[in-house]
Amino acid sequence: MAAPLIEADAVVIGAGPVGLFQVFQLGLLEVKTHVIDVLPYAGGQCVELYADKPIYDIPAVPVTTGSGLTESLLQQIGPFGAQMHFGRQVASVQRQDDSRIHLTTTSGQAFLTKALFIASGVGAFVARSLHVDGIAQFEGSQLHYRTPPVDSLSKRHVVIHGGSDAALECALQVLAPDNTHRPASVTLVHRRDVFVAEADTLARVQALRASGTLRFVAAQITGFEAADGVLKALQILDAEGKTRALPADQVLAFLGVSPKMGPIADWGLAMERKQLAVNTEDFGTNVPGIFAVGDINTYPGKKKLILCGFHEATLAAYGAMPFIFPEKKVMLQYTTTSPRLHALLGVQTPQKNA
Amino acid sequence: MAAPLIEADAVVIGAGPVGLFQVFQLGLLEVKTHVIDVLPYAGGQCVELYADKPIYDIPAVPVTTGSGLTESLLQQIGPFGAQMHFGRQVASVQRQDDSRIHLTTTSGQAFLTKALFIASGVGAFVARSLHVDGIAQFEGSQLHYRTPPVDSLSKRHVVIHGGSDAALECALQVLAPDNTHRPASVTLVHRRDVFVAEADTLARVQALRASGTLRFVAAQITGFEAADGVLKALQILDAEGKTRALPADQVLAFLGVSPKMGPIADWGLAMERKQLAVNTEDFGTNVPGIFAVGDINTYPGKKKLILCGFHEATLAAYGAMPFIFPEKKVMLQYTTTSPRLHALLGVQTPQKNA
Repeated sequence: MAAPLIEADAVVIGAGPVGLFQVFQLGLLEVKTHVIDVLPYAGGQCVELYADKPIYDIPAVPVTTGSGLTESLLQQIGPFGAQMHFGRQVASVQRQDDSRIHLTTTSGQAFLTKALFIASGVGAFVARSLHVDGIAQFEGSQLHYRTPPVDSLSKRHVVIHGGSDAALECALQVLAPDNTHRPASVTLVHRRDVFVAEADTLARVQALRASGTLRFVAAQITGFEAADGVLKALQILDAEGKTRALPADQVLAFLGVSPKMGPIADWGLAMERKQLAVNTEDFGTNVPGIFAVGDINTYPGKKKLILCGFHEATLAAYGAMPFIFPEKKVMLQYTTTSPRLHALLGVQTPQKNA
Repeated sequence: MAAPLIEADAVVIGAGPVGLFQVFQLGLLEVKTHVIDVLPYAGGQCVELYADKPIYDIPAVPVTTGSGLTESLLQQIGPFGAQMHFGRQVASVQRQDDSRIHLTTTSGQAFLTKALFIASGVGAFVARSLHVDGIAQFEGSQLHYRTPPVDSLSKRHVVIHGGSDAALECALQVLAPDNTHRPASVTLVHRRDVFVAEADTLARVQALRASGTLRFVAAQITGFEAADGVLKALQILDAEGKTRALPADQVLAFLGVSPKMGPIADWGLAMERKQLAVNTEDFGTNVPGIFAVGDINTYPGKKKLILCGFHEATLAAYGAMPFIFPEKKVMLQYTTTSPRLHALLGVQTPQKNA
């Protein structure tokens, strides 16, 4: 059975920095928002890819990180009580005859909104898959792009593939001293003996290798061996150019993520080179009431920078007001001086003293 | 004699938040800038009007103040070593045949720059003057819009006019216990016994009034009395509707500030309602090589918000590159990942560990 329809003034797709600031600017205009994101938390690409990495070009913030930026924005939008719908992807978007926009998510939820803000970044990030002919048949059973429950690896020959932090963290998790579900073997496969990871992670992995608990092979995966539809081994090409078989019951591959446009391409919005085309007056798309802000949009001069998305979200909020509050005369007010905005933000207005 | 001509890649007029961020974005593109501001310090309107007042709408900065914002931006542009020219107003701007832009300041300095960024806000802020017929003749001698050196007030009848912090601070300064140059009298004149000031300032002023050191009159200034070209008294209209004379040798008026466009109107730039008209691709004006960012510019959708100026300065920096480095192919790089930008910022690039 379908979930009840949610009627809304504004829906924001994407809880990355620009989507969060969209909530802020709408909040200053007294608009309550619903935010939908495919990830289970706020921050988008910033926490997926740069959680602990420094960012130097947020204006007036000499240095922050992906998670630092996200936390600051969550604090800033706190007063506006946006409703977050995490872990859901928007499946369909359609403008209705009454000019409202109908949305459905992959989890079956439906929304009917007066304005829609697409702040979904370059798209959902999906794990890059292993390019070996025919191996996709094992996905979900013997091939994984994240760490499966460790008990499913008990007494198995496990191959961890990749040179990233994620690959090494997986090895540490599978071989954690308190894991009683010991695999038969754990082999780390990467094309070179070079890893991009925190020094501490590297040191712990080196210790496991030195003790023989974790094997390492510098090789590429070129094929596989299976019997009766069950994966038995990987064919690997080592640094000396020799191909050999490596026993493998479970393959855990960490090859990074790549952006995936998702279903946005099917919503009838004007696009230019996989971006949503917008005007620079209010960052509206060709469909009235639908705005696109941040890395998903394009216009002459566009730079894919977070700070540009903040500007876009601001003008989009004003641009949406005729759809949300058609009767209301909207005036620009300043957070420094406006008692109305102070009330919305829940802060005190400085008093005039007699 | 004229100061030597300074040849520059980029000159920014205005050291407010947007002018400072202009320096940052140019710095990331390896452009050194000169910044000219009429004020004796950085921050512009933000420190002139909002130094200690809260600002809530800088993205990812839940709350700051005019001076807090300025300090953060000064820290952020630190690595780029911009040359600051404070206390000077730009007098003339002219594009040369070689396509460079020639600037002069009121202090006689001349610049020849490849690109010019006008970030002068709504204009220079000038003190509002006292609207009393004929009183302007005393400006600089017996009428002042700032606190003159206290020794010039010694044994004089001093009238301080206004209801702002600045008026009260002036009274406290003139009557400071360690000021040995005591005036004959000090009278505070304001139309009502209501002041906008910090509680501490108010308390100290109340103490001076209670002790009789500072007199207060609730009145409007309607005229003056003079003899032989020397101001002798002000005519004041009190709350009961009576006009009387108040002895006055020195009048210090604090009536707030108002923006003044200044000479920008004469530089041949396209304007719309006292703003510089720009395109939204790179915020260039109608004159090639001259860009306008922040509150001084206008375009469809324009909102006078600092965060919008940050975006404008960013696109203007890229737009200016063909004028500054015509041979160079400019690529957008990210401060999170680019070793080149890390070197410019003087920060360490995370190492790849073997």
